[in-house]
Amino acid sequence: MSKIRVGIVGYGNVGKGVEKAVNAASDMELVAVITRRDPQSVSIATASAKVWSITESLPMADQIDVMVLCGGSAADLGVQGPQFARIFNTVDSYDTHARIPEYLTEMDAAAQNTVALISCGWDPGLFSMLRALSGAALPDGTDYTFWGRGVSQGHSDAIRQIAGVKSAVQYTVPINKAVEAARSGNNPVLSTREKHRRECYVVAEEGADLAQIELAVKTMPHYFAEYDTTVTFISTEEFQEKHQKMPHGGMVLRGGNTGENKHVIEFALKLESNPEFTGSVLAACARAAVRLYREGIRGAKTPLDIPLTYLSPRSRDELVQELL
Amino acid sequence: MSKIRVGIVGYGNVGKGVEKAVNAASDMELVAVITRRDPQSVSIATASAKVWSITESLPMADQIDVMVLCGGSAADLGVQGPQFARIFNTVDSYDTHARIPEYLTEMDAAAQNTVALISCGWDPGLFSMLRALSGAALPDGTDYTFWGRGVSQGHSDAIRQIAGVKSAVQYTVPINKAVEAARSGNNPVLSTREKHRRECYVVAEEGADLAQIELAVKTMPHYFAEYDTTVTFISTEEFQEKHQKMPHGGMVLRGGNTGENKHVIEFALKLESNPEFTGSVLAACARAAVRLYREGIRGAKTPLDIPLTYLSPRSRDELVQELL
Repeated sequence: MSKIRVGIVGYGNVGKGVEKAVNAASDMELVAVITRRDPQSVSIATASAKVWSITESLPMADQIDVMVLCGGSAADLGVQGPQFARIFNTVDSYDTHARIPEYLTEMDAAAQNTVALISCGWDPGLFSMLRALSGAALPDGTDYTFWGRGVSQGHSDAIRQIAGVKSAVQYTVPINKAVEAARSGNNPVLSTREKHRRECYVVAEEGADLAQIELAVKTMPHYFAEYDTTVTFISTEEFQEKHQKMPHGGMVLRGGNTGENKHVIEFALKLESNPEFTGSVLAACARAAVRLYREGIRGAKTPLDIPLTYLSPRSRDELVQELL
Repeated sequence: MSKIRVGIVGYGNVGKGVEKAVNAASDMELVAVITRRDPQSVSIATASAKVWSITESLPMADQIDVMVLCGGSAADLGVQGPQFARIFNTVDSYDTHARIPEYLTEMDAAAQNTVALISCGWDPGLFSMLRALSGAALPDGTDYTFWGRGVSQGHSDAIRQIAGVKSAVQYTVPINKAVEAARSGNNPVLSTREKHRRECYVVAEEGADLAQIELAVKTMPHYFAEYDTTVTFISTEEFQEKHQKMPHGGMVLRGGNTGENKHVIEFALKLESNPEFTGSVLAACARAAVRLYREGIRGAKTPLDIPLTYLSPRSRDELVQELL
């Protein structure tokens, strides 16, 4: 079987993560990175791959088996997704949870002649798969999801909008007491504030009113007001030294009963680099999308629709022999 | 859609667990328990279901959509599996790991007109699914499986074979230091002895030589010799009071890298009743087997071959909306 030829749309942190994963896989090769920027200005890590402008990429369908869409859900995927899915098999990590059913419908309409695998990161993605699996195994139960400790880009961005803030990073931190309560199997009701706290590290501009910034963070509706939030002001040097990595993680936990007996199912991720791990999952899903396509499947699919063997570079026989 | 009509073959602890799970599911109904014993002597919990002798059950194919085979792998499934799969859709928890590929081939040959879903408990089963999923997400890594703390029936049985032993129970216990080492993401090499220890509780017959029993347990090859094993003699009363439950659990852990960055994926089960949880997983797999059959799929399948939506009583739309 010839190698799966991959295109990456959008060369940010996740795109670079996909590139690394594709280059590490013996059954895939990176053909091109597709960018909105001037291709001349984009330098990629893979010497053998090309950089194409997004405006010229669409005629290249015969050179690429699957496009991994690495843009953001809010600004990019809503438009790019259907546009690419009309011509290419696609994989993305669309993560605006409330709009997923609508996006799935749009992608399904676009993917008449292709496979479009949506929402393939770790949440949505692996976490969704585990919610489905543990819900099926333990129907009478309660789901809990904890995120972190890890950087939330959305919350970090929100702090940066405040006047007087030079740079900022926000860590979402699960509260241990809540995790232990969920793990007990007693299916406790936990409030937003009980489940997570938010740690903010802020570099302020010279002369900025620190008390004012702290107040603005802590009272920001939707982002911080419903949480116990700490704001720590640090120097540019400390920010550069300690807060450049993008760790993340979290857990999906389900407690439930069969008659008198309690059971707990737990799935946890501890990631040193969120974009690299997300890229690795997207690469596995790109493999699955191409396999589905080669079997004659068409339309938009989700991680809940794929047999696990499709994600692996190894043969079903090998998986059965070694993992079952 | 009419309810899925279920038969249970073998009414031991797992069979009773399946019965509970089927009765709790709104889309399934228990039609019959099939037994090797005299049907008159078997009293089941479901008033509306019948008890049939295994010798008369085979002509009943039009009354049952799926047979859940609850016999043991060693003595029962090798024969019963292909026999039932020729006529019925089947689900089983075949767990002789080394012989699974061979059993899959035999079941595939038998299931010409049916679906036979094999090895559907939690190991093999859920743990296998998690090994496949985490291996695909993190190809450059190492798998670890820990079992327990829980009762191993095989090891408990082995102790009971020793002269002078009246009753016995064996708990497999993961060693915390090994779990933490695996969790570190440093991919340590761990020996059998480092990963688990074995706790045995033994009721001896009156006048038995306790030192002799202890020695026989601790030096038993394959079962105990490679482990740090403790043997505690207890009274019949204590045995009855403290060791009648069948808790179990364990974890599948994968540590791996993407370039410079380490990641850890962990899946853990904590079960108060191993047979009831196993029964609950088998019931979900029975649903999947019938759905595959209704879509025209035939042959032997494994948990690695099933899209997760097939396991759930909920519709795909609901799962996408609420879990993705």
